[in-house]
Amino acid sequence: MTQRRTVFFVSDGTGITAQMLGHSLLTQFEGVVFNQVTLPFVDSVPKAEECRERIELEAGGGNGQPIVFSTLVNAEARAVVRRANALFLDFFETFIDPLEAGLGVKSTHTVGHSHAARDKNQYQNRIEAVNFALAHDDGATHRELELADVILVGVSRSGKTPTCLYLALQFGVKAANYPLIPEDFSRMKLPGVLQGYRGRLYGLTIAPERLREIRQERRPNSSYSDLENCRYEVDRAETLMRGAGIRWINSTTKSIEEIATTILRELKIERQVY
Amino acid sequence: MTQRRTVFFVSDGTGITAQMLGHSLLTQFEGVVFNQVTLPFVDSVPKAEECRERIELEAGGGNGQPIVFSTLVNAEARAVVRRANALFLDFFETFIDPLEAGLGVKSTHTVGHSHAARDKNQYQNRIEAVNFALAHDDGATHRELELADVILVGVSRSGKTPTCLYLALQFGVKAANYPLIPEDFSRMKLPGVLQGYRGRLYGLTIAPERLREIRQERRPNSSYSDLENCRYEVDRAETLMRGAGIRWINSTTKSIEEIATTILRELKIERQVY
Repeated sequence: MTQRRTVFFVSDGTGITAQMLGHSLLTQFEGVVFNQVTLPFVDSVPKAEECRERIELEAGGGNGQPIVFSTLVNAEARAVVRRANALFLDFFETFIDPLEAGLGVKSTHTVGHSHAARDKNQYQNRIEAVNFALAHDDGATHRELELADVILVGVSRSGKTPTCLYLALQFGVKAANYPLIPEDFSRMKLPGVLQGYRGRLYGLTIAPERLREIRQERRPNSSYSDLENCRYEVDRAETLMRGAGIRWINSTTKSIEEIATTILRELKIERQVY
Repeated sequence: MTQRRTVFFVSDGTGITAQMLGHSLLTQFEGVVFNQVTLPFVDSVPKAEECRERIELEAGGGNGQPIVFSTLVNAEARAVVRRANALFLDFFETFIDPLEAGLGVKSTHTVGHSHAARDKNQYQNRIEAVNFALAHDDGATHRELELADVILVGVSRSGKTPTCLYLALQFGVKAANYPLIPEDFSRMKLPGVLQGYRGRLYGLTIAPERLREIRQERRPNSSYSDLENCRYEVDRAETLMRGAGIRWINSTTKSIEEIATTILRELKIERQVY
């Protein structure tokens, strides 16, 4: 019989960190179905009481003891939630003490520092990166291409656009992308405008069978989505990139996070996190 | 004198979870300058040895004992990195034991479950959300608007586009956005196409002074960026939204994460995390 458990991600802030870390731990348990509930902005004792009641309700619901992942910074709020009938796993208090000891500095215990828009310049930088990715999507413009941290190349639907947007939003990295198209394959040369940016080019490739599936959804039964054409384009694109000395990653079984991380590492781009 | 410390985020996978949680803890310490280094894909003992050497090098560099935030799943790799001369804070082992006890289930200890593209449907869902946000940016099309989980409205440059893209990439939520423009303010009515979607509308507003700054960068000294015009548009937009019963959030001092989280909560949209 499958075990069911309700999991709460509780935070003073957005709950994104709690959810992400909790999720990475839960994926280690097979055969358990987790009902996941995020409770963000629990930034006062009354809200913590509400939260505790919500957890207690679940504890009486027949799915076993709930699990609570908490990043609560406020000690009073945390004390309230901790009293709930649940397995309480705290990401903040667990690590703040050894950090204080190691640094010899007291923490400020300030709520909402993590995903708050503290620094206007940093925020502006991120928004600019998003605007840059949008303006430089699919080779739309050559203007200010010299500002790009990375320029992705690859056949249509190999995953360039989502990767560029993720690089912008998660890391504040300016990413442009250029499609490799039939004209490039006839000449077997990179688009001329890219010649000056060799060090910032990175390729995406994909299994032709997967490419076909993706293109089918967009333009069913077209020459664009034909398997033979997909095979041809992928083969030509890889030959072209190899000839031009462009490294690439195969996106077929990779997540956007894995692709983005690989690109940053290989191009030695420093990563911030937002 | 300012204390300096080097911080390593070490992971078998992308390091994004380690970086995010580590970052949220470090923001609690003022007066310490952290030099942050992410070491992703440390998924073997030889790579762990390299990683340990890198940390040791830093330990001898005069910035005090380095701090290591680890999400290493592989026990052998973790044991290697733990031997480095550093304050070693482990997010995985610390919580996996109480989780195993609480669930009465052994964890699989499998590497790379967190940001890996496990489920093709889930991945497809996310990419579709990104495509949806791009296709429905700035009121570009009414087609398939009925598929939107949320439709953001607000004056030009109030933060609609980055929020929609974030909702798509981080949560797989389909988000469209419509600008509120002078014609809407003359009629003091919502764009007709939005009338049928009242329950999914959410507003963004912004301080006129901040709006002016943002618009100035785009079109300096235009009537578009004129402070009086910004005041007028924001006032009209808020009046229009109030009249239409649309809730809104002021984006001036909020991060994209905070805005997105608030919208999901208020519209009661279930959030996944990728």
